This record gives sequence, structure tokens and C-alpha cells, in this order.
Amino acid sequence: MELYHRIQIQDVVRLDHAALDAVEAGFRALGQGRVVQPPILSMAIEESNGEVDVKTAHIRGHDRFAIKVSPGFFDNPSLGLPSLNGLMIVFSAKTGLVEAVLFDEGYLTDIRTALAGAIAAKHLSRHDSRRATVIGAGVQAELQIAALKLVRDIDTVDVWARDTDRANAYAERIRERFEGLTVNVHGDMASACREADVIITTTPSKSPLLDAGHLPAGVHVTAMGSDSPEKRELEVSVMTCADVFVADTRAQSESNGELKAWAGKTMPFEVQELGPVIASGQSPRTGHDQITVCDLTGTGVQDTAIASFALKRLVA
Amino acid sequence: MELYHRIQIQDVVRLDHAALDAVEAGFRALGQGRVVQPPILSMAIEESNGEVDVKTAHIRGHDRFAIKVSPGFFDNPSLGLPSLNGLMIVFSAKTGLVEAVLFDEGYLTDIRTALAGAIAAKHLSRHDSRRATVIGAGVQAELQIAALKLVRDIDTVDVWARDTDRANAYAERIRERFEGLTVNVHGDMASACREADVIITTTPSKSPLLDAGHLPAGVHVTAMGSDSPEKRELEVSVMTCADVFVADTRAQSESNGELKAWAGKTMPFEVQELGPVIASGQSPRTGHDQITVCDLTGTGVQDTAIASFALKRLVA
Repeated sequence: MELYHRIQIQDVVRLDHAALDAVEAGFRALGQGRVVQPPILSMAIEESNGEVDVKTAHIRGHDRFAIKVSPGFFDNPSLGLPSLNGLMIVFSAKTGLVEAVLFDEGYLTDIRTALAGAIAAKHLSRHDSRRATVIGAGVQAELQIAALKLVRDIDTVDVWARDTDRANAYAERIRERFEGLTVNVHGDMASACREADVIITTTPSKSPLLDAGHLPAGVHVTAMGSDSPEKRELEVSVMTCADVFVADTRAQSESNGELKAWAGKTMPFEVQELGPVIASGQSPRTGHDQITVCDLTGTGVQDTAIASFALKRLVA
Repeated sequence: MELYHRIQIQDVVRLDHAALDAVEAGFRALGQGRVVQPPILSMAIEESNGEVDVKTAHIRGHDRFAIKVSPGFFDNPSLGLPSLNGLMIVFSAKTGLVEAVLFDEGYLTDIRTALAGAIAAKHLSRHDSRRATVIGAGVQAELQIAALKLVRDIDTVDVWARDTDRANAYAERIRERFEGLTVNVHGDMASACREADVIITTTPSKSPLLDAGHLPAGVHVTAMGSDSPEKRELEVSVMTCADVFVADTRAQSESNGELKAWAGKTMPFEVQELGPVIASGQSPRTGHDQITVCDLTGTGVQDTAIASFALKRLVA
């Protein structure tokens, strides 16, 4: 059994096309019914405002599977520590022996989450998308743009965040990171979204931020912030006005994502899943002016895919 | 973060009273309602006759919690590998940071499982129990006796196993391990159980082995083999004839343990749980001739308790 630390993993796994292909292949296998993916194990540590989630999946026939353990302790920043953390364990799917512990401290989760956003945009957004709006100014606000640029020629980013100082700092960071990118900080959500081809919500909000009135014709929306029973980013109107609504997994969207707005009642629109969309090889978008929405909650197959990809590179 | 290997862990964690106290304290906390213990995450890897289980629990107010990942790949012996395996990860309950990975390869599971048997016998068997019957001849057949000797003055062990050669080898092993112990190998279950004060079933059987006709008056039975939807060791008659029936956790016994015999229907007897029995400070056994039965399926709180105990010793 080998133990790898974050710094080693960062060295070999980046937001590139190879990593995107690996995560996309995981979703495709899920869509083809070739994946065993049990429900998330989740435990609250209330006295510390913490929780820990365990996700896993096995792609049938693959040599390895991974189990990810990700604690989120939301008072950590006041202690000078990051909220998110954790590790992935890679097992042989032949013997169950532990092949490696990837002590990535959440790095691979950041990467596979950003890549899922890019994959959603690849299959749902207009091919000529140039302008992306980001809601939020944290780690994913940056990584989602970096990943999106793998699949769409983004030249302009509009950002809105509750904290304008953080939005300005974010704008500076990504201007520096991506030469030639135009970055506009907005004072309100409506103006940030007005010209968007793609909107990505990346906040830990507990109440909806984005509503149908913010959406220009032809936009694609990826909501990746909500991943627990308390969080929501989209008003119901965003989902009801969409021509296409896709969830990474429907069951998780109903418990942890945006579909929980319906609280178990039938929603008045069709829900597709990202895996079958990819497996079908056909985008559900059938018109330039259609509005597409994708809700990402994070799935075990992404973790298994990125961990296997990482280990292959680490041992290469 | 520290990584500890099996050999280091074996060096400091043994079947002794301190380890027993640690696991018993975990059960007591569970009985007092001080434990968060989510359902087991379980995933099958069918093409390799394998499965992986993830268990966890948090004792409120404690500094640490553990997550255990235990793969079971049942074709491994034909490859010269053990079926059971895995590791435990210990987290700070204040920050969620990983404190240690205990790469115990299933050793701590063996220990805490044996200790749970001893704890059940401590609270349910007659104080004057001297004679123990073991069904099965594997690792737990040995460890259960070693643990039981911490709480009862066992002088005689009767053993029955399907494979008589294995039963004989087992008898030799424990005669060597415990000086002065009388060990009898039996050709059938009935003769093995006839004089028992305590019976422990330790098999991976998929159909019931022990029935009410095997039980002498006053006996205590611990069934620790069944821990998955396919396994069963006790005939229904063992449970219906018992004066006291205790499960480590009722929900797990209904899904993975002996209570699944009722397949969701109401069982015609009272089901107690081990945690509350311990917390109450009073044995539910109220007579010398009563029959008590305890079904153990393995709980997350045992894992958190033994992992915290191990880490305390490792860093001491």
C-alpha cells in the first residue's frame, strides 16, 4: 500500500483534457448501467458544525475502485484551517486489498467537481458560448472557469458575489491566471447574468439566489453549490422555465440538490440524468434559444474515476 | 497525519480489560443516546465475489471519531490472500482533520468483534459460567474464547465445526494458547452444546445451524457470524425460546443479522439492544435457568471506540 500526499497528487493531476475524459467516462458508464453506486453515507458532528460524507462507486469490470471520505467542518476558517478536507482510498476490485491512500486533503474533489461542470457545459451549453457568469468567488468559482475553458472558448467572465471585496479579489486572480480574459465584477446578480452564455452558481447558499428573470435566452446554468439537505441556489422558476433539466443523479438532487424544492412531490418537468445524456451521444439541447439547467451534487463515480486516474499517473 | 501498520497496532492493542472497557464504553454511550451512528454503507463487487462495508459513529463530545472501511473478498483464499481486510481512519471531531490512518488489515475489527462477544456474555451469561461451546473453527472461534476468558472463568471448551480437521486444528491451537483449558472436539452440534454455559456461533453460514433443541437450561448464546443479508446461524426456535433476546442494534439485526428471519414482520418477543442493557447497569437475566441470546452484527461505535483506543496507545 502506498501513501501519496497532496503535493504529489497536485503534481500529476490538473484540469486538463485527460482528467476530463476520465471523469466523463465515469458518467458515461453510469449512464450505461455499468456502475454500482450506493447512497452517500453522511454523519453530522453537530457540536463542531461539522459533517463527514463517504462516497463510492464501482465501474463493473474495472481493476480499481475508490472510497472517498470528505469531512466539512465549517467553523474551521475561524481556526485558520480549511473547511474541506479528507482523502481517497483506492482498492483492487479483484482482491479488495488497499492499493493506495491518496491523502489529497480535498484536492481531487475540487478537480472532479470542476470537471463535472465542464462536462455538463460540454453536453448542454451552446457550442458558441463565449461569456460565462460565475456566482460566488471561492475555490470553485475559479476552478469552474478553468475547467469550462477546456470545452468552450470563454473570453469574458462576469462575476457576482455577496462580498464585493472577495469578488474583486477573485477577478484579479483569474485575470492573472488567464491572459486575455475580460473579467467584470457586478454589483448585482441581474447585471452579472444579462449577457451570459453559461451561468455557474458556486455558493454554499441556504436560500435560492438565481431566478428565471436572471436568465437570458439560450443560456446554460450549472448549479454546483448545493450538496446537502440545507443548501439551495436555484429558485423553482429556474427549473420550471428550463427546456432541459439534468441532474448528476436524480436521487441525490432530490435529497441534497435543487430538486428538494419539490419535497418528494412530482416536479412539473422531465428530469434527465447526466450519465445517460453522455451515453446517448446526443445533447438534449435542440435549439439556440433553449435554456438548459444542470444540478450537480457530486457522485461517487466521479471520485472513483478521478482517484483511479490519479493513481495511474502517480505510479507511471 | 500518521500512518500506522498492522504490526505496530498489534503491538499495543490486545484482548485485555482496557480494550474491553473502551468498547463497552462505546456501547454504553450508544445506550445513553450519546452516539450518532449512521447506517452502514455497503457496496457489492459481484464479479470478484466481493463487498466493501463502511461503518462509522461519533460519540458526542469525544475528541475523535473513526471511519472503518472493510472489504470482504471471498475468493481471496484461493489466491492465498485473506478474505477480510481494510483500514480505519481517525479524525479530529473538532476540525475533521485526519489524525491517523490505521492500516490494520482487519485486525482491529477482529479485536472489537471478539470484545463485543465478551461484553454480551458479561451482561447476559450466568456469572458461574465455566463451559463454552464454539461453533466454527476460524479466527473468531479463537478470539471469542480469549475475550470470553476476560469476563468468565472458562475451564472447558467444546467445539463443533463442519470440517472436523479444522476443528481438531483449532482444538490444538487453543490448548496451546490457554494452559489448563480442557478442549473437546465433537462430531455433532447436539453433543457439543449439551453441557454449555455459553454458546458462541462464529460461522459464515447461510442457513441456520443452531436450534432450540440444542440449548441446555440457563445457557447464553452469542451469534456473531451473521453480518450480511445472506447469512444466518440461528433457527427461529432459538429466538422464540429465549427468555431474553438482545441485538447489538435492532435495525442491523433486521437487515444483516438474525432478526431478518422475520422479514419485516413483528417478532413474537421483545428485542432489547446491548447499549441500553449496559447503560441500565442491570442484566436482563433474572434467573439461573433462563436462556439469553445476543445477536451481534458489528456496529460503528465499536470501530470508533477501538480506533480511538488504539491511537491513544500508539501515540503514548
